[in-house]
Order: sequence, then structure tokens, then C-alpha cells
Amino acid sequence: MKLYYSPGACSMGIHIILEELGKPYELSLVALKDGAQHKPDFLAVNPKSKVPALDRGDGKVLTEFPVIAWWLAKANPAAALIPADLEGEARCLELLDYVCGTIHPQAFTRQFRPGNYTLREEDFPKSVELGKANADKYFATLEKGWAGGTYLLPSGYSVADAALFFVEYWATRRSGLTLPPHLAAHLAAMLARPAVQRALTQEGLAL
Amino acid sequence: MKLYYSPGACSMGIHIILEELGKPYELSLVALKDGAQHKPDFLAVNPKSKVPALDRGDGKVLTEFPVIAWWLAKANPAAALIPADLEGEARCLELLDYVCGTIHPQAFTRQFRPGNYTLREEDFPKSVELGKANADKYFATLEKGWAGGTYLLPSGYSVADAALFFVEYWATRRSGLTLPPHLAAHLAAMLARPAVQRALTQEGLAL
Ligand SMILES: N[C@@H](CCC(=O)N[C@@H](CS)C(=O)NCC(=O)O)C(=O)O
Ligand SMILES: N[C@@H](CCC(=O)N[C@@H](CS)C(=O)NCC(=O)O)C(=O)O
Repeated sequence: MKLYYSPGACSMGIHIILEELGKPYELSLVALKDGAQHKPDFLAVNPKSKVPALDRGDGKVLTEFPVIAWWLAKANPAAALIPADLEGEARCLELLDYVCGTIHPQAFTRQFRPGNYTLREEDFPKSVELGKANADKYFATLEKGWAGGTYLLPSGYSVADAALFFVEYWATRRSGLTLPPHLAAHLAAMLARPAVQRALTQEGLAL
Repeated sequence: MKLYYSPGACSMGIHIILEELGKPYELSLVALKDGAQHKPDFLAVNPKSKVPALDRGDGKVLTEFPVIAWWLAKANPAAALIPADLEGEARCLELLDYVCGTIHPQAFTRQFRPGNYTLREEDFPKSVELGKANADKYFATLEKGWAGGTYLLPSGYSVADAALFFVEYWATRRSGLTLPPHLAAHLAAMLARPAVQRALTQEGLAL
């Protein structure tokens, strides 16, 4: 398997899941800061120009963070990274989609790439502010609905935690936000996991 | 079961799936144009203020279009609305996430609610233009990667088609866009399905 990633991008969540699984895989760098996602080499891998993308080793590439995370968990049932019952699996997917489809774009892309949202450079600070306010709002929603213990799901650690981790990491390391209690404890628990430490180190990121 | 919907919103895709299943369900109106999604009554159902939301009849509400669609298909295997093999299921989820997580917000919300993107009213026309250009780009990506026959997946009709339908419907009915050939044929096939016709009629929408 080969993970197309960019250091510190949301692909770090999939990187963590691969480290949790402990099976052999390769990393292939797509340097977003150099626009590598728009070059022909990578467009042949993922015409949507986004990381993460996962080549499963058969030349067939899977895209979309929630789907890659779900597929890795389903294809490796022994690792128990997703609940085995339909209801638990649905809640895991629901959290993956909330993080990747709402929190990531509406809170963090709005801060990190304000030009994707507002059209004038003089409005960028307002976009950043709005992104931070959205992050606080979405995190408060997660905090209020917290159903798990240390991890998101009552059944324990799952691939949804790797998604929540990357937005928590951005919130605290890049945006200077303060997380509500359950999320702060979640981030600390994630940072204590060897798989998370290995993935961050491999990407050249501070713990 | 009870579907929280707003006429003509993306919830129409879930409405179609419920009609395909042919099991009893109720509709509960959340009038987005009146801001009903932000009122306490609906916040108690979905604190994220979004339709679709599905009450499965046990008081437990499921949110996120891709997850509701996937769950309805998985909970009703006899209807065969999702491939039974892991690879087919992954491709179905991947398409659901692309439509709901990228095409919907980046192409259509950008047109229909430009104020969610750019901050100045005088920039709204540019946001609409950008939304239309994104729609054309995303549709071209789907057209080029088209793996199915009439429907999106090679295995035939699935819940992913109900997602593609709502953006095709918006593109042609509200945005005045022209769809590439596979998507135009897909839209025509969808409009010929009795379940689609019943859902549109119930929402007061033209075919
Ligand atoms: N819908 C995609 C979105 C992934 C995404 O936004 N990735 C970012 C990195 S965090 C990216 O590749 N951005 C490059 C670009 O937009 O040019 C998913 O869930 O995987
Ligand atoms: N992530 C959600 C997004 C759904 C969504 O954007 N729904 C729109 C209607 S098409 C909505 O409820 N908008 C109300 C609002 O944003 O105030 C999903 O996939 O279900």
C-alpha cells in the first residue's frame, strides 16, 4: 500500500491509522505548498487533486478521508478499529463525515486558505476569524454530544479518533485555540499513542 | 421513521431513497428559508442545524447525507441499494462523499448562499460564477471517470445515484448548467424512476 500525503495535512490521520495497523506501507510525498497536487503525475493518481489518496497495492486508488479510514478498518477486522455492529459503524462514519466534511473545510480551510472562501485579500483576517469561531462552535457541539469515554465512541478507540485528532492538532498547534475538556483529554490521549508519535515524527511534526 | 427535510434541499436525495425502499415513513418540514434549522425544536433533533436528519423511529437520529444513505441501504439489504462486496461498498461511499462533501458545498452552496463564502455583497456574483465553474470542473471529473452504465456504479442503481441526482437537479433547474453526456443520461434515467417522481411531487418540485 502507498499513502499519498503532505506533511501536516489531513492525510496525517490516515498515516496514523496505517501506523496503528502495523502492516507494511510506503509514503509518497505530494508537496501541497509547491502545488504538486495539480501536476500530471498526481492527477493520474487522484484527478480530484487532494490528499489523502491510498493506493491499495493493486493499482486501485481510494480517495476521501472518511472512506479510506472506513475501508482500512473494514479490510483489517482483527485490528478492531471500527465497531462491528451496524449502529456503531454508522456512528463512526457520522463522526468521520462531520470532521472531514464540515469541521475541516468550514473551520480550518477557511483559516489556512482564506482565498478559497473570500475573494479579497483585505478580507482574509475576517475569514480567519470566522474559521476560528466555527471551530469553537463545532467543537462545542462535539463536547456537548460526547458519548464516549477517552475516545469518541463508547466502544473505544476507532478510526474516527484519527480524524478528530488532525483538527485538534491544527486547532492547538496552528490556530492557538483552546479545546473544551473532553477534546483536550482526547488530544492528550492521542499524543500518548505510539502510532501517533511515529506518524508525527515521520512527517517532521512536533508532538 | 421520520425524515427532516426542506423542499428542494439535498434532503431530497434521502427522500428518494425512502421512496425506493417503499417502507412507511413520515416527513417533517424544516423550512430553511424561515431559519427553522436554528430554532430550539430542530436543534434538539440535530444540533448541527442541517437537513437531512433521520429519526429511525427509536428516537435515535442519524445525520450526514452519506451516512444516512449508507445506513438505509445496509439496514435494508433486500432492496440491494448498495453493493454487497467491500470494494463496491467503498466506491459507493466514495461517490457519496465526493457529491456531499465537495460538489454540494464548493459548487452549489457557493452559488445559493454566496454569503457563506465571500463577505461582501458586491462580490456575490463572482462567488456564483466560481461555484458554476467548480460545478463544471467536478462534473467533468465524474464524466471522465464514469465507470458505470446508466448509473454511477458498474453494479447498477445504488444510493450514490440519489446523491448525484440532487446536484444534477440543481445544476439544470436552478443554475442553468449543461451536464456532460453520462450525467445528462443519468439525470434522465433518474427522472424516469417512479420513486424520484413521487419524491419531487411530494416536495412540490417540477420534474
Ligand atoms: N474531500 C477530501 C478533502 C481532502 C482535503 O481537503 N485535503 C487537502 C489537504 S488537508 C488537500 O489536498 N488540499 C489541496 C488543495 O486543495 O489544493 C477528503 O475528505 O479526503
Ligand atoms: N454535512 C451535511 C450537510 C447538509 C447540508 O448542507 N444541508 C443544507 C441543505 S441542502 C442545510 O441544512 N443548510 C441549512 C443551513 O446551513 O443553515 C450532510 O451531508 O448532510
